[in-house]
Amino acid sequence: MPRAAVVLLSGGIDSATALAIARSDGYVCYALSVDYRQRHRFELRAAKKIAASMGVKQHRIIKLDPSVFGGSALTEEIAVPKFRPERQRSRTIPVTYVPGRNMVLLALALAWAETLGAGHIFIGVNALDYSGYPDCRPEFIGAFQGTANLGTRAGVEGRPIQIHAPLIRLTKADIIRKGSSLGVPFGRTHSCYDPDPRGRACGACDSCLIRKKGFIEAGIPDPTVYGGSERARG
Amino acid sequence: MPRAAVVLLSGGIDSATALAIARSDGYVCYALSVDYRQRHRFELRAAKKIAASMGVKQHRIIKLDPSVFGGSALTEEIAVPKFRPERQRSRTIPVTYVPGRNMVLLALALAWAETLGAGHIFIGVNALDYSGYPDCRPEFIGAFQGTANLGTRAGVEGRPIQIHAPLIRLTKADIIRKGSSLGVPFGRTHSCYDPDPRGRACGACDSCLIRKKGFIEAGIPDPTVYGGSERARG
Repeated sequence: MPRAAVVLLSGGIDSATALAIARSDGYVCYALSVDYRQRHRFELRAAKKIAASMGVKQHRIIKLDPSVFGGSALTEEIAVPKFRPERQRSRTIPVTYVPGRNMVLLALALAWAETLGAGHIFIGVNALDYSGYPDCRPEFIGAFQGTANLGTRAGVEGRPIQIHAPLIRLTKADIIRKGSSLGVPFGRTHSCYDPDPRGRACGACDSCLIRKKGFIEAGIPDPTVYGGSERARG
Repeated sequence: MPRAAVVLLSGGIDSATALAIARSDGYVCYALSVDYRQRHRFELRAAKKIAASMGVKQHRIIKLDPSVFGGSALTEEIAVPKFRPERQRSRTIPVTYVPGRNMVLLALALAWAETLGAGHIFIGVNALDYSGYPDCRPEFIGAFQGTANLGTRAGVEGRPIQIHAPLIRLTKADIIRKGSSLGVPFGRTHSCYDPDPRGRACGACDSCLIRKKGFIEAGIPDPTVYGGSERARG
Protein backbone atom coordinates (compact mmCIF):
# COMPACT_ATOMS: atom_id res chain seq x y z
CA MET A 1 0.00 0.00 0.00
CA PRO A 2 1.09 3.64 -0.29
CA ARG A 3 2.96 5.00 2.69
CA ALA A 4 0.56 4.90 5.60
CA ALA A 5 0.80 6.90 8.82
CA VAL A 6 -1.02 6.94 12.13
CA VAL A 7 -1.46 10.57 13.19
CA LEU A 8 -2.26 11.41 16.81
CA LEU A 9 -5.04 13.98 16.65
CA SER A 10 -6.08 15.81 19.80
CA GLY A 11 -8.12 18.53 18.15
CA GLY A 12 -5.64 21.32 18.85
CA ILE A 13 -3.60 23.46 16.48
CA ASP A 14 -0.46 21.34 16.70
CA SER A 15 -1.92 17.93 15.92
CA ALA A 16 -4.09 19.39 13.13
CA THR A 17 -0.95 20.90 11.60
CA ALA A 18 0.96 17.62 12.01
CA LEU A 19 -1.89 15.92 10.12
CA ALA A 20 -1.73 18.54 7.36
CA ILE A 21 2.03 17.98 7.04
CA ALA A 22 1.62 14.19 6.87
CA ARG A 23 -1.03 14.55 4.20
CA SER A 24 1.02 17.07 2.26
CA ASP A 25 4.00 14.68 2.39
CA GLY A 26 1.87 12.05 0.66
CA TYR A 27 0.97 9.74 3.53
CA VAL A 28 -2.36 7.96 3.72
CA CYS A 29 -3.45 9.14 7.17
CA TYR A 30 -5.15 7.20 9.95
CA ALA A 31 -6.10 9.66 12.69
CA LEU A 32 -6.11 8.45 16.28
CA SER A 33 -7.78 10.33 19.13
CA VAL A 34 -7.84 9.14 22.71
CA ASP A 35 -10.84 9.96 24.87
CA TYR A 36 -9.64 10.22 28.47
CA ARG A 37 -10.32 13.73 29.64
CA GLN A 38 -13.06 14.41 32.09
CA ARG A 39 -12.95 18.18 31.80
CA HIS A 40 -12.76 19.21 28.18
CA ARG A 41 -14.22 16.87 25.69
CA PHE A 42 -14.59 19.76 23.26
CA GLU A 43 -11.19 18.76 21.94
CA LEU A 44 -12.62 15.48 20.67
CA ARG A 45 -15.48 17.26 18.96
CA ALA A 46 -12.84 19.42 17.28
CA ALA A 47 -10.82 16.33 16.33
CA LYS A 48 -13.84 14.81 14.58
CA LYS A 49 -14.44 17.97 12.56
CA ILE A 50 -10.77 18.23 11.59
CA ALA A 51 -10.50 14.57 10.58
CA ALA A 52 -13.67 14.88 8.49
CA SER A 53 -12.51 18.03 6.73
CA MET A 54 -8.93 16.87 6.10
CA GLY A 55 -9.66 13.63 4.29
CA VAL A 56 -8.23 11.00 6.63
CA LYS A 57 -8.63 7.37 5.60
CA GLN A 58 -10.03 6.47 9.04
CA HIS A 59 -10.52 8.28 12.34
CA ARG A 60 -10.44 6.05 15.38
CA ILE A 61 -11.37 7.32 18.84
CA ILE A 62 -10.15 5.08 21.64
CA LYS A 63 -11.78 5.35 25.03
CA LEU A 64 -9.28 5.15 27.85
CA ASP A 65 -10.14 4.99 31.53
CA PRO A 66 -9.51 8.57 32.76
CA SER A 67 -8.08 7.18 35.98
CA VAL A 68 -4.93 6.26 34.01
CA PHE A 69 -3.87 9.87 34.10
CA GLY A 70 -4.12 11.17 37.63
CA GLY A 71 -2.41 14.16 39.13
CA SER A 72 -2.98 16.82 36.47
CA ALA A 73 -5.17 19.90 36.16
CA LEU A 74 -6.31 18.49 32.80
CA THR A 75 -7.86 15.40 34.31
CA GLU A 76 -8.55 16.31 37.94
CA GLU A 77 -10.31 19.17 39.64
CA ILE A 78 -7.17 21.23 40.17
CA ALA A 79 -7.50 24.93 39.27
CA VAL A 80 -6.07 25.79 35.85
CA PRO A 81 -3.64 28.71 36.32
CA LYS A 82 -4.72 31.92 34.57
CA PHE A 83 -2.80 34.86 33.12
CA ARG A 84 0.56 33.40 34.14
CA PRO A 85 3.51 35.41 32.88
CA GLU A 86 5.51 33.61 30.20
CA ARG A 87 8.66 33.43 32.32
CA GLN A 88 6.81 31.52 35.02
CA ARG A 89 5.29 29.15 32.46
CA SER A 90 8.56 28.11 30.92
CA ARG A 91 10.65 27.53 34.05
CA THR A 92 8.79 24.70 35.70
CA ILE A 93 6.95 21.57 34.67
CA PRO A 94 3.37 22.93 34.44
CA VAL A 95 0.51 21.55 36.56
CA THR A 96 -1.05 20.65 33.21
CA TYR A 97 1.73 18.07 32.68
CA VAL A 98 0.02 14.67 32.51
CA PRO A 99 2.21 11.81 33.84
CA GLY A 100 3.09 9.38 31.10
CA ARG A 101 0.72 10.88 28.57
CA ASN A 102 2.82 10.94 25.42
CA MET A 103 4.24 7.50 26.23
CA VAL A 104 0.70 6.11 26.42
CA LEU A 105 -0.47 7.97 23.30
CA LEU A 106 2.55 6.83 21.27
CA ALA A 107 2.16 3.26 22.54
CA LEU A 108 -1.48 3.22 21.41
CA ALA A 109 -0.48 4.69 18.04
CA LEU A 110 2.25 2.05 17.74
CA ALA A 111 -0.19 -0.80 18.40
CA TRP A 112 -2.52 0.49 15.69
CA ALA A 113 0.31 1.24 13.24
CA GLU A 114 1.70 -2.27 13.55
CA THR A 115 -1.76 -3.80 13.11
CA LEU A 116 -2.35 -1.68 9.99
CA GLY A 117 1.11 -2.31 8.63
CA ALA A 118 1.77 1.44 8.75
CA GLY A 119 5.42 2.37 9.11
CA HIS A 120 4.95 5.95 10.29
CA ILE A 121 3.53 7.76 13.31
CA PHE A 122 3.04 11.53 13.48
CA ILE A 123 2.78 13.42 16.77
CA GLY A 124 2.41 17.18 17.06
CA VAL A 125 4.67 17.70 20.06
CA ASN A 126 6.61 20.89 20.36
CA ALA A 127 9.67 21.49 22.50
CA LEU A 128 9.70 25.28 22.43
CA ASP A 129 6.33 26.50 23.65
CA TYR A 130 6.01 23.51 25.96
CA SER A 131 9.57 23.45 27.20
CA GLY A 132 8.50 22.21 30.62
CA TYR A 133 7.04 18.91 29.38
CA PRO A 134 9.67 16.14 29.49
CA ASP A 135 7.72 14.05 26.97
CA CYS A 136 7.76 16.78 24.32
CA ARG A 137 11.55 16.71 23.90
CA PRO A 138 13.40 15.33 20.85
CA GLU A 139 15.40 12.93 23.04
CA PHE A 140 12.19 11.33 24.31
CA ILE A 141 10.77 10.95 20.80
CA GLY A 142 14.03 9.44 19.53
CA ALA A 143 14.22 7.02 22.44
CA PHE A 144 10.61 5.96 21.91
CA GLN A 145 11.35 5.17 18.26
CA GLY A 146 14.31 3.02 19.26
CA THR A 147 12.24 1.17 21.86
CA ALA A 148 9.39 0.67 19.40
CA ASN A 149 11.72 -0.96 16.91
CA LEU A 150 13.07 -3.34 19.55
CA GLY A 151 9.61 -4.33 20.74
CA THR A 152 7.63 -4.92 17.57
CA ARG A 153 7.50 -7.56 14.89
CA ALA A 154 7.85 -4.80 12.30
CA GLY A 155 11.07 -3.53 13.87
CA VAL A 156 12.58 -6.97 14.38
CA GLU A 157 11.74 -8.05 10.85
CA GLY A 158 13.43 -5.05 9.27
CA ARG A 159 10.44 -2.79 8.67
CA PRO A 160 11.30 -0.12 11.22
CA ILE A 161 8.65 2.29 12.41
CA GLN A 162 9.49 5.96 12.18
CA ILE A 163 8.16 8.53 14.64
CA HIS A 164 7.72 11.96 13.07
CA ALA A 165 7.49 15.05 15.24
CA PRO A 166 7.57 17.71 12.50
CA LEU A 167 6.73 20.59 14.87
CA ILE A 168 9.23 19.78 17.56
CA ARG A 169 11.54 22.71 16.89
CA LEU A 170 8.94 25.23 15.70
CA THR A 171 7.47 28.13 17.64
CA LYS A 172 3.69 28.42 17.88
CA ALA A 173 3.85 31.23 15.29
CA ASP A 174 5.82 28.96 12.92
CA ILE A 175 3.25 26.21 13.40
CA ILE A 176 0.36 28.56 12.69
CA ARG A 177 2.09 29.88 9.54
CA LYS A 178 2.80 26.33 8.36
CA GLY A 179 -0.72 25.12 9.15
CA SER A 180 -2.25 28.14 7.48
CA SER A 181 -0.26 27.51 4.30
CA LEU A 182 -1.53 23.91 4.28
CA GLY A 183 -5.18 24.89 4.78
CA VAL A 184 -5.67 23.74 8.38
CA PRO A 185 -9.15 24.79 9.51
CA PHE A 186 -7.96 26.59 12.66
CA GLY A 187 -11.49 27.78 13.47
CA ARG A 188 -12.34 24.14 14.17
CA THR A 189 -9.40 23.49 16.50
CA HIS A 190 -9.63 23.70 20.28
CA SER A 191 -6.79 24.66 22.62
CA CYS A 192 -8.35 25.86 25.89
CA TYR A 193 -7.67 23.95 29.11
CA ASP A 194 -10.73 25.47 30.80
CA PRO A 195 -13.58 26.13 28.37
CA ASP A 196 -17.06 27.28 29.44
CA PRO A 197 -19.94 24.77 29.31
CA ARG A 198 -20.56 25.63 25.66
CA GLY A 199 -16.95 24.92 24.76
CA ARG A 200 -15.78 28.51 24.34
CA ALA A 201 -12.12 29.15 25.14
CA CYS A 202 -11.35 31.01 28.38
CA GLY A 203 -8.63 33.14 26.83
CA ALA A 204 -6.54 33.09 30.01
CA CYS A 205 -5.06 29.64 30.58
CA ASP A 206 -1.51 28.85 29.42
CA SER A 207 -2.82 27.17 26.28
CA CYS A 208 -5.05 30.12 25.29
CA LEU A 209 -2.24 32.60 25.98
CA ILE A 210 0.20 30.61 23.82
CA ARG A 211 -2.40 30.34 21.07
CA LYS A 212 -3.27 34.07 21.09
CA LYS A 213 0.37 35.09 21.04
CA GLY A 214 1.09 32.61 18.24
CA PHE A 215 -1.55 34.11 15.95
CA ILE A 216 -0.33 37.63 16.73
CA GLU A 217 3.30 36.72 16.00
CA ALA A 218 2.33 34.84 12.85
CA GLY A 219 0.42 37.89 11.62
CA ILE A 220 -2.63 35.74 10.95
CA PRO A 221 -6.12 36.56 12.28
CA ASP A 222 -7.17 34.31 15.20
CA PRO A 223 -10.55 32.77 14.37
CA THR A 224 -11.12 31.74 18.01
CA VAL A 225 -14.13 33.05 19.93
CA TYR A 226 -12.85 33.67 23.45
CA GLY A 227 -16.17 33.57 25.23
CA GLY A 228 -15.30 32.01 28.54
CA SER A 229 -12.89 34.60 29.83
CA GLU A 230 -15.34 36.35 32.18
CA ARG A 231 -15.05 33.31 34.47
CA ALA A 232 -11.31 33.70 34.62
CA ARG A 233 -11.68 37.31 35.65
CA GLY A 234 -14.39 36.73 38.25
CA MET B 1 6.67 6.23 51.67
CA PRO B 2 8.24 2.77 51.61
CA ARG B 3 9.43 1.58 48.22
CA ALA B 4 6.33 1.32 46.06
CA ALA B 5 5.94 -0.68 42.87
CA VAL B 6 3.32 -1.00 40.18
CA VAL B 7 3.06 -4.68 39.21
CA LEU B 8 1.42 -5.66 35.92
CA LEU B 9 -0.90 -8.54 36.78
CA SER B 10 -2.52 -10.54 33.99
CA GLY B 11 -3.70 -13.45 36.08
CA GLY B 12 -1.18 -15.93 34.71
CA ILE B 13 1.68 -17.78 36.40
CA ASP B 14 4.35 -15.30 35.38
CA SER B 15 2.76 -12.09 36.57
CA ALA B 16 1.61 -13.74 39.82
CA THR B 17 5.21 -14.83 40.44
CA ALA B 18 6.52 -11.36 39.58
CA LEU B 19 4.10 -9.97 42.19
CA ALA B 20 5.31 -12.51 44.76
CA ILE B 21 8.93 -11.50 44.08
CA ALA B 22 8.13 -7.78 44.40
CA ARG B 23 6.33 -8.42 47.70
CA SER B 24 9.13 -10.63 48.98
CA ASP B 25 11.66 -7.91 48.07
CA GLY B 26 9.78 -5.53 50.36
CA TYR B 27 7.86 -3.40 47.87
CA VAL B 28 4.41 -2.04 48.61
CA CYS B 29 2.59 -3.39 45.57
CA TYR B 30 -0.02 -1.72 43.37
CA ALA B 31 -1.37 -4.32 40.95
CA LEU B 32 -2.48 -3.17 37.51
CA SER B 33 -4.61 -5.28 35.18
CA VAL B 34 -5.78 -4.18 31.78
CA ASP B 35 -9.12 -5.38 30.48
CA TYR B 36 -8.89 -5.54 26.67
CA ARG B 37 -9.43 -9.15 25.69
CA GLN B 38 -12.62 -10.22 24.09
CA ARG B 39 -11.98 -13.93 24.26
CA HIS B 40 -10.69 -14.85 27.65
CA ARG B 41 -11.74 -12.67 30.49
CA PHE B 42 -11.09 -15.54 32.87
CA GLU B 43 -7.61 -14.10 33.25
CA LEU B 44 -9.05 -10.99 34.91
CA ARG B 45 -11.09 -13.06 37.31
CA ALA B 46 -7.87 -14.88 38.19
CA ALA B 47 -6.05 -11.55 38.60
CA LYS B 48 -8.65 -10.38 41.13
CA LYS B 49 -8.30 -13.57 43.18
CA ILE B 50 -4.50 -13.36 43.14
CA ALA B 51 -4.42 -9.67 44.08
CA ALA B 52 -6.84 -10.32 46.94
CA SER B 53 -4.87 -13.28 48.27
CA MET B 54 -1.43 -11.70 47.93
CA GLY B 55 -2.02 -8.55 49.91
CA VAL B 56 -1.61 -5.82 47.34
CA LYS B 57 -2.16 -2.23 48.48
CA GLN B 58 -4.52 -1.57 45.57
CA HIS B 59 -5.66 -3.48 42.48
CA ARG B 60 -6.68 -1.30 39.57
CA ILE B 61 -8.33 -2.74 36.48
CA ILE B 62 -8.18 -0.41 33.49
CA LYS B 63 -10.61 -0.91 30.66
CA LEU B 64 -9.01 -0.46 27.27
CA ASP B 65 -10.84 -0.48 23.96
CA PRO B 66 -10.14 -3.98 22.54
CA SER B 67 -9.81 -2.46 19.07
CA VAL B 68 -6.39 -1.15 20.15
CA PHE B 69 -4.95 -4.60 19.71
CA GLY B 70 -5.97 -5.97 16.35
CA GLY B 71 -4.41 -8.76 14.41
CA SER B 72 -3.91 -11.42 17.09
CA ALA B 73 -5.56 -14.72 17.95
CA LEU B 74 -5.91 -13.39 21.50
CA THR B 75 -8.16 -10.54 20.51
CA GLU B 76 -9.67 -11.58 17.18
CA GLU B 77 -11.46 -14.67 15.98
CA ILE B 78 -8.36 -16.37 14.59
CA ALA B 79 -7.98 -20.05 15.49
CA VAL B 80 -5.59 -20.67 18.38
CA PRO B 81 -3.04 -23.30 17.25
CA LYS B 82 -3.24 -26.57 19.16
CA PHE B 83 -0.68 -29.26 20.01
CA ARG B 84 2.10 -27.42 18.15
CA PRO B 85 5.50 -29.04 18.55
CA GLU B 86 7.91 -26.96 20.62
CA ARG B 87 10.37 -26.44 17.78
CA GLN B 88 7.66 -24.82 15.70
CA ARG B 89 6.59 -22.60 18.59
CA SER B 90 10.00 -21.17 19.25
CA ARG B 91 11.13 -20.39 15.69
CA THR B 92 8.53 -17.84 14.59
CA ILE B 93 6.66 -14.93 16.11
CA PRO B 94 3.46 -16.71 17.26
CA VAL B 95 0.00 -15.71 16.00
CA THR B 96 -0.71 -14.94 19.65
CA TYR B 97 1.79 -12.05 19.46
CA VAL B 98 -0.22 -8.88 20.13
CA PRO B 99 1.17 -5.81 18.31
CA GLY B 100 2.46 -3.23 20.74
CA ARG B 101 1.06 -4.98 23.80
CA ASN B 102 3.90 -4.71 26.27
CA MET B 103 4.65 -1.15 25.17
CA VAL B 104 1.04 -0.21 25.95
CA LEU B 105 0.98 -2.15 29.25
CA LEU B 106 4.26 -0.61 30.41
CA ALA B 107 3.12 2.87 29.35
CA LEU B 108 -0.07 2.48 31.42
CA ALA B 109 1.98 1.21 34.37
CA LEU B 110 4.34 4.16 33.97
CA ALA B 111 1.50 6.68 34.04
CA TRP B 112 0.15 5.15 37.24
CA ALA B 113 3.59 4.81 38.83
CA GLU B 114 4.41 8.45 38.23
CA THR B 115 1.05 9.55 39.60
CA LEU B 116 1.56 7.42 42.72
CA GLY B 117 5.17 8.50 43.12
CA ALA B 118 6.21 4.85 42.77
CA GLY B 119 9.72 4.38 41.40
CA HIS B 120 9.40 0.73 40.36
CA ILE B 121 7.45 -1.27 37.80
CA PHE B 122 7.39 -5.08 37.71
CA ILE B 123 6.48 -7.04 34.59
CA GLY B 124 6.51 -10.84 34.32
CA VAL B 125 7.94 -11.13 30.84
CA ASN B 126 10.07 -14.05 29.97
CA ALA B 127 12.49 -14.32 27.09
CA LEU B 128 13.00 -18.09 27.09
CA ASP B 129 9.61 -19.71 26.81
CA TYR B 130 8.31 -16.83 24.71
CA SER B 131 11.37 -16.34 22.56
CA GLY B 132 9.28 -15.32 19.57
CA TYR B 133 7.85 -12.19 21.21
CA PRO B 134 9.99 -9.14 20.43
CA ASP B 135 8.54 -7.25 23.40
CA CYS B 136 9.62 -9.91 25.91
CA ARG B 137 13.34 -9.40 25.29
CA PRO B 138 15.75 -7.74 27.76
CA GLU B 139 16.81 -5.17 25.15
CA PHE B 140 13.21 -3.98 24.82
CA ILE B 141 12.75 -3.70 28.60
CA GLY B 142 16.02 -1.79 28.97
CA ALA B 143 15.12 0.59 26.14
CA PHE B 144 11.70 1.20 27.65
CA GLN B 145 13.27 2.15 30.98
CA GLY B 146 15.59 4.62 29.26
CA THR B 147 12.69 6.16 27.33
CA ALA B 148 10.55 6.35 30.49
CA ASN B 149 13.25 8.30 32.28
CA LEU B 150 13.55 10.78 29.42
CA GLY B 151 9.81 11.31 29.20
CA THR B 152 8.68 11.71 32.81
CA ARG B 153 8.96 14.36 35.47
CA ALA B 154 10.34 11.72 37.81
CA GLY B 155 13.14 10.81 35.41
CA VAL B 156 14.03 14.39 34.57
CA GLU B 157 14.05 15.44 38.23
CA GLY B 158 16.45 12.68 39.25
CA ARG B 159 14.03 10.09 40.61
CA PRO B 160 14.50 7.49 37.86
CA ILE B 161 11.92 4.77 37.38
CA GLN B 162 13.23 1.24 37.31
CA ILE B 163 11.61 -1.52 35.26
CA HIS B 164 12.03 -4.95 36.85
CA ALA B 165 11.59 -8.08 34.76
CA PRO B 166 12.71 -10.66 37.33
CA LEU B 167 11.63 -13.66 35.23
CA ILE B 168 13.20 -12.59 31.99
CA ARG B 169 15.95 -15.22 31.98
CA LEU B 170 14.07 -18.01 33.78
CA THR B 171 12.49 -21.10 32.27
CA LYS B 172 8.87 -21.84 33.04
CA ALA B 173 10.04 -24.56 35.44
CA ASP B 174 12.30 -22.03 37.23
CA ILE B 175 9.37 -19.62 37.50
CA ILE B 176 7.10 -22.31 38.93
CA ARG B 177 9.73 -23.34 41.47
CA LYS B 178 10.32 -19.72 42.46
CA GLY B 179 6.59 -18.96 42.67
CA SER B 180 5.94 -22.10 44.64
CA SER B 181 8.62 -21.19 47.19
CA LEU B 182 6.97 -17.77 47.60
CA GLY B 183 3.47 -19.17 48.08
CA VAL B 184 1.91 -18.16 44.76
CA PRO B 185 -1.62 -19.64 44.59
CA PHE B 186 -1.09 -21.34 41.20
CA GLY B 187 -4.53 -22.93 41.37
CA ARG B 188 -5.98 -19.45 40.98
CA THR B 189 -3.88 -18.49 37.95
CA HIS B 190 -5.09 -18.79 34.37
CA SER B 191 -2.88 -19.44 31.33
CA CYS B 192 -5.10 -20.87 28.59
CA TYR B 193 -5.55 -18.96 25.32
CA ASP B 194 -8.74 -20.85 24.49
CA PRO B 195 -10.75 -21.82 27.59
CA ASP B 196 -14.20 -23.38 27.46
CA PRO B 197 -17.23 -21.24 28.40
CA ARG B 198 -16.76 -22.11 32.07
CA GLY B 199 -13.15 -20.95 31.98
CA ARG B 200 -11.49 -24.38 32.02
CA ALA B 201 -8.13 -24.57 30.27
CA CYS B 202 -8.02 -26.38 26.90
CA GLY B 203 -4.75 -28.16 27.63
CA ALA B 204 -3.60 -27.90 24.01
CA CYS B 205 -2.77 -24.28 23.12
CA ASP B 206 0.85 -23.07 23.30
CA SER B 207 0.23 -21.51 26.69
CA CYS B 208 -1.29 -24.68 28.21
CA LEU B 209 1.52 -26.83 26.76
CA ILE B 210 4.18 -24.53 28.21
CA ARG B 211 2.40 -24.52 31.56
CA LYS B 212 2.03 -28.32 31.71
CA LYS B 213 5.64 -28.89 30.76
CA GLY B 214 6.77 -26.31 33.32
CA PHE B 215 5.05 -28.08 36.20
CA ILE B 216 6.44 -31.43 35.07
CA GLU B 217 9.99 -30.10 34.80
CA ALA B 218 9.68 -28.30 38.13
CA GLY B 219 8.54 -31.52 39.78
CA ILE B 220 5.55 -29.74 41.28
CA PRO B 221 1.95 -30.99 40.93
CA ASP B 222 -0.08 -28.94 38.44
CA PRO B 223 -3.30 -27.80 40.15
CA THR B 224 -4.93 -26.90 36.82
CA VAL B 225 -8.15 -28.59 35.77
CA TYR B 226 -7.81 -29.12 32.02
CA GLY B 227 -11.50 -29.45 31.22
CA GLY B 228 -11.74 -27.82 27.82
CA SER B 229 -9.49 -30.14 25.90
CA GLU B 230 -12.28 -32.13 24.25
CA ARG B 231 -12.91 -29.11 22.03
CA ALA B 232 -9.32 -29.11 20.89
CA ARG B 233 -9.58 -32.75 19.94
CA GLY B 234 -12.95 -32.51 18.20
